[in-house]
Amino acid sequence: MAKVKKQPRPKAETPKGFRDYFGAEVTQRKAMLDRIAAVYHRYGFDALESGAVETVEALGKFLPDVDRPNEGVFAWQEEDSGWLALRYDLTAPLARVYAQHRNDLPTPYRRYAMGPVWRNEKPGPGRFRQFYQCDADTVGAASVAADAEICAMLADVLEELGIPRGDYVVRVNNRKVLDGMLETMCYPPDAGLGKDNPTVRQSIEGALKHTAEKTVRENMPAILRTIDKFDKVGEAGVIELLTNGRKDASGAFIEGVGLLHEEAQAVVRFLTSKADDASTTLSNLRGAVGQSELGLEGVQELETIAELLAKQGYGPDRIVIDPSVVRGLGYYTGPVFEAELTFEIKDEKGRPRQFGSVAGGGRYDDLVKRFTGQAVPATGVSIGVDRLLAALQAKGRMEDHAAGPVVVTVMDRNRMGDYQAMVSELRAAGLRAEVYLGNPKNFGNQLNYADARGAPVAVIQGSEEAARGVVQLKDLVLGAKIASEASLEEWKAQPAQREVPRDQLVATVQAMLAGGAA
Amino acid sequence: MAKVKKQPRPKAETPKGFRDYFGAEVTQRKAMLDRIAAVYHRYGFDALESGAVETVEALGKFLPDVDRPNEGVFAWQEEDSGWLALRYDLTAPLARVYAQHRNDLPTPYRRYAMGPVWRNEKPGPGRFRQFYQCDADTVGAASVAADAEICAMLADVLEELGIPRGDYVVRVNNRKVLDGMLETMCYPPDAGLGKDNPTVRQSIEGALKHTAEKTVRENMPAILRTIDKFDKVGEAGVIELLTNGRKDASGAFIEGVGLLHEEAQAVVRFLTSKADDASTTLSNLRGAVGQSELGLEGVQELETIAELLAKQGYGPDRIVIDPSVVRGLGYYTGPVFEAELTFEIKDEKGRPRQFGSVAGGGRYDDLVKRFTGQAVPATGVSIGVDRLLAALQAKGRMEDHAAGPVVVTVMDRNRMGDYQAMVSELRAAGLRAEVYLGNPKNFGNQLNYADARGAPVAVIQGSEEAARGVVQLKDLVLGAKIASEASLEEWKAQPAQREVPRDQLVATVQAMLAGGAA
Repeated sequence: MAKVKKQPRPKAETPKGFRDYFGAEVTQRKAMLDRIAAVYHRYGFDALESGAVETVEALGKFLPDVDRPNEGVFAWQEEDSGWLALRYDLTAPLARVYAQHRNDLPTPYRRYAMGPVWRNEKPGPGRFRQFYQCDADTVGAASVAADAEICAMLADVLEELGIPRGDYVVRVNNRKVLDGMLETMCYPPDAGLGKDNPTVRQSIEGALKHTAEKTVRENMPAILRTIDKFDKVGEAGVIELLTNGRKDASGAFIEGVGLLHEEAQAVVRFLTSKADDASTTLSNLRGAVGQSELGLEGVQELETIAELLAKQGYGPDRIVIDPSVVRGLGYYTGPVFEAELTFEIKDEKGRPRQFGSVAGGGRYDDLVKRFTGQAVPATGVSIGVDRLLAALQAKGRMEDHAAGPVVVTVMDRNRMGDYQAMVSELRAAGLRAEVYLGNPKNFGNQLNYADARGAPVAVIQGSEEAARGVVQLKDLVLGAKIASEASLEEWKAQPAQREVPRDQLVATVQAMLAGGAA
Repeated sequence: MAKVKKQPRPKAETPKGFRDYFGAEVTQRKAMLDRIAAVYHRYGFDALESGAVETVEALGKFLPDVDRPNEGVFAWQEEDSGWLALRYDLTAPLARVYAQHRNDLPTPYRRYAMGPVWRNEKPGPGRFRQFYQCDADTVGAASVAADAEICAMLADVLEELGIPRGDYVVRVNNRKVLDGMLETMCYPPDAGLGKDNPTVRQSIEGALKHTAEKTVRENMPAILRTIDKFDKVGEAGVIELLTNGRKDASGAFIEGVGLLHEEAQAVVRFLTSKADDASTTLSNLRGAVGQSELGLEGVQELETIAELLAKQGYGPDRIVIDPSVVRGLGYYTGPVFEAELTFEIKDEKGRPRQFGSVAGGGRYDDLVKRFTGQAVPATGVSIGVDRLLAALQAKGRMEDHAAGPVVVTVMDRNRMGDYQAMVSELRAAGLRAEVYLGNPKNFGNQLNYADARGAPVAVIQGSEEAARGVVQLKDLVLGAKIASEASLEEWKAQPAQREVPRDQLVATVQAMLAGGAA
């Protein structure tokens, strides 16, 4: 046999844009998702877990985020069965699952799903190619009661996670209102005639060249993309972008959509039509949509949502009608909602800023149409898992799941069985405990190990202590405090170490943990 | 613009070998994994979650299961960064993680990991291309105390899941004993000379043509593969397969490994050397390995494991030394272990059979060598998630997580707010509840929906009941019982329905659920 050429060693590296999660990074996220799942379950939503892999055909080629045309999926060709791909969100698989199993599923079908999704896009700081999503959707319910329910559930989720009322708000808007308003712009109500009169239509199209219905329809994606920047560029910026264009901070010129100035102002009036109370907001919106049937339907839906929520006690301190919610307006077809955390955190430069959005969703009324040809109404929400977890950590709402184990050191390797018996007893009492399993020769290494593990207590028993039937207990939390605060003499006195009879090991450790750090 | 040709509708299908998991299928598995994780945590193991995707280079090309040479991975080529692949197990990523982060990780490093893995192999009944694994490994501990700990933890896991002592056993074997015994076969101790004497070596090689050390080494994979079939083909079968070959049930002839009959018998003696107590088993093994240093080391390791476990109270009713554990002997380098459920279940033909293996593992002492060049000892266990879950379900050990919600029906769509208020109150009391969100026109559909949801109670309030301030509560559990047992007249009397004042809704439903089915 010819000698195989020696291969160079492989690099031990995560692929670009992927990362590993250790210890508390895993358990804190899990604890958060568990509590969210409990709320979803209480609302009657059922768990669904589809595979990570879908056929490219079933997945479809287009991603929902209008702003990222370059993003893609991880896909590969199978020898016998065409192209497969990793799911890029949890909605596309829901569409496939519902179309495939619709005869066996209840209608309406409420389902939640949590798990990783994959995006084959350029990774950046804090932006990975695998990340978690956490969705709840109701399929097959045309009533806006389904949308109201999602909003209430979102509020419950945030409170369940320890975010108090006042520190969050769920904002609700409706795509139909925007569409209706744009309709009105083309056929202003003060023309005194409806859009159905072809003569008027002609003359208006002549007068407002760029905003004839056709033009607005064509411009719709650009208008929606521009509105999406409202949070970033503000009123004046949006007006510039909707009309003749705008120089951005870097000095680059961004071309405008080409609306007339008064049309752009109408759009901004819509975006800023939120008043102190829902009924004034709704009346502002009614003014904005004029005679548009679609617009009025949208306002009516918002009114129904507000009424349903009020009946359940979700007042404007928790859920508000707010036409400035623009995220996803291009994707959704009816009500849209967004959950925002309103408390301040410090940004990287130490300046206070609001935490911002942690969840968003809305109604999309043709979920399974591409599979079955039938339009099926659906509405749902997706929680930004990483952002919400960061918020909870910033607010100190996550338990310290990283609590280190009690470490039993090995002074005499022939008595490993005795040390194992100690950890067994500690565990039987519900404590987290482990014996040192490295080479026990260097005792300093064992204490370094206990430090690295975040151990609250180290247990020490040499042959001399064993003969006397005692153990030494080293309080590492107190020890660290003394080490950082005490003089050498004080440190040497080691008051953080005590000797107890062997049979009081468990009780003493329990007492030390109860009295010590969290 | 040219008209785009209409695409045919995509099929709503999972890719071949993938499946969807609904409701209790998801939550029961999750509940089981949560309880396992709690035990792992108590033993000082830390969670690790690596991405689903690894570079093919880091993953390596070879899978551990010797028996499945055709199985592969899902892999694809990236434009700029080479080949990526979905992980096929949780051990290969652990090797990469440990090599990459070893300076920041404690040594020894105890970690657990749970999650899906992917195999690009031919799917079959009950055999999917995505499935869960649940592993715990200790990296960097050469001492067999680490192996003993894994065995104890495995026993604790099974009891924590509700499998009583006596219904499971953890069996321990050691690859080194087998290797030592095969060494002895080449250079039998009664030759009176060691293997280091080249003259003796020559003459033995001449006498036992097929079993010269070289031949045994070459045959080792075949011998291990054959031993792996011990459970299936029994003593006589293994002897046939190790010698001249065997006709299987279908009449096909499987070629033999080519050992002499007495050599094959020695192998079987090893496999069956388990006695009633550990010390007799160990003494049998000592006899089998003769002068082989490796074999004696293996026996000594088993003895140490037995002693350590005995010190912690894990007697042979829970963990036994058993040389018939052969699974994975080709993969592992030292102790191997297997957890078996010993209670009987009925097979598909109604015959009683033992449930069998639900977890396995062992020591593999070159985990990160391909990355760093350094051998790092490691030992670990992998739980067969689907099999163990099936066992718990067979034993009735899983709670019914599929408990359906209380369904509030919609008699009057203008009073949706009132119905939403009812579910809000029920949820606030901790009950799972939902309002019917489909088209309420056909009331029969609503009750069918409640049935499909497994709802225990349906709440009904028409305008007449609303005016009187009452609700109707339909006990669907009792109703189903009556429907299946009662006559038409009895059924019509509907004793499973009662009327209560609106303000007693929550209390009454609570009482009905407490008194009703689990």
